[in-house]
Amino acid sequence: MKHSISDKKKLITRINRIKGQLAALSTAVEAEDDCYKVMQLLASCRGAMNGLMTDIVNSHIKDHVVKAATKQDASDAGDELIEILGSFLK
Amino acid sequence: MKHSISDKKKLITRINRIKGQLAALSTAVEAEDDCYKVMQLLASCRGAMNGLMTDIVNSHIKDHVVKAATKQDASDAGDELIEILGSFLK
Amino acid sequence: MKHSISDKKKLITRINRIKGQLAALSTAVEAEDDCYKVMQLLASCRGAMNGLMTDIVNSHIKDHVVKAATKQDASDAGDELIEILGSFLK
Amino acid sequence: MKHSISDKKKLITRINRIKGQLAALSTAVEAEDDCYKVMQLLASCRGAMNGLMTDIVNSHIKDHVVKAATKQDASDAGDELIEILGSFLK
Repeated sequence: MKHSISDKKKLITRINRIKGQLAALSTAVEAEDDCYKVMQLLASCRGAMNGLMTDIVNSHIKDHVVKAATKQDASDAGDELIEILGSFLK
Repeated sequence: MKHSISDKKKLITRINRIKGQLAALSTAVEAEDDCYKVMQLLASCRGAMNGLMTDIVNSHIKDHVVKAATKQDASDAGDELIEILGSFLK
Repeated sequence: MKHSISDKKKLITRINRIKGQLAALSTAVEAEDDCYKVMQLLASCRGAMNGLMTDIVNSHIKDHVVKAATKQDASDAGDELIEILGSFLK
Repeated sequence: MKHSISDKKKLITRINRIKGQLAALSTAVEAEDDCYKVMQLLASCRGAMNGLMTDIVNSHIKDHVVKAATKQDASDAGDELIEILGSFLK
């Protein structure tokens, strides 16, 4: 995934934030917090992960399908996209 | 949407099948059927619609992004795809 | 599904509206409209169907799980709910 | 969230597994791996998180809505469930 260094840093930061949310979730489960609180934390993690997924899928479309160097590269990247999207549209 | 006549017929057939599923849903609601049955019918409709969406999105990727005539067309079709996907990845 | 007559009418109206959206989709496919327009119409249908599903699931929770006459009825309605939710959380 | 110690341990184990998947994702982004590989890792994380969410929501339905001590507790747990489900059915 060829992205600028600043993009890479931003992605790592977002992944780390989700790890932090999962740590909070572990703590809540460990402390036997309210089930509602556990579900809210998990829904937040899920939202953050979906947001990250959206951004990476969008970059893939722009950088690897639309701006592919060759028709074959575009076709390969298109097939990869279709495979990944298959896990969402259910 | 330039597709062959046979593709068009298949799409219309699938849309009509979903309309039929909605008619069955109306009948179930009208007859005050069990809530569970109503939910099952609705879940089937939703599954059929998601399947249709997946196929149309996949055709769009293959025919209008990957096989675009120009870089500008590919870029426009890519932007359209991103907008549509935005409604799923939530 | 025991609901008041007014609820039933509202549900039928919403189902009919989705049927109308599907008819517009058929027309767009038949007329070989732009793929983007077809995807937008389909995304609208899907949104309307998800909204309907949410409302029916919520009624099920309130009327058939929470307000069940007996523990056994609550348990049965809970199992039905779990089965239906299984098709969404994927 | 009152669960047995063994349930708690299982939940923590699953959360830790997702953290491990996120660590693999960070490594892939850091190493500038293929975008496809990054998307696959992210799709796996998302699947694991959805699976965890499903199980916690199902426990909530069984333990806190169906088996609530009082009608009021069932009603409160039902409202919490509805709020959480609102983030999925979109």
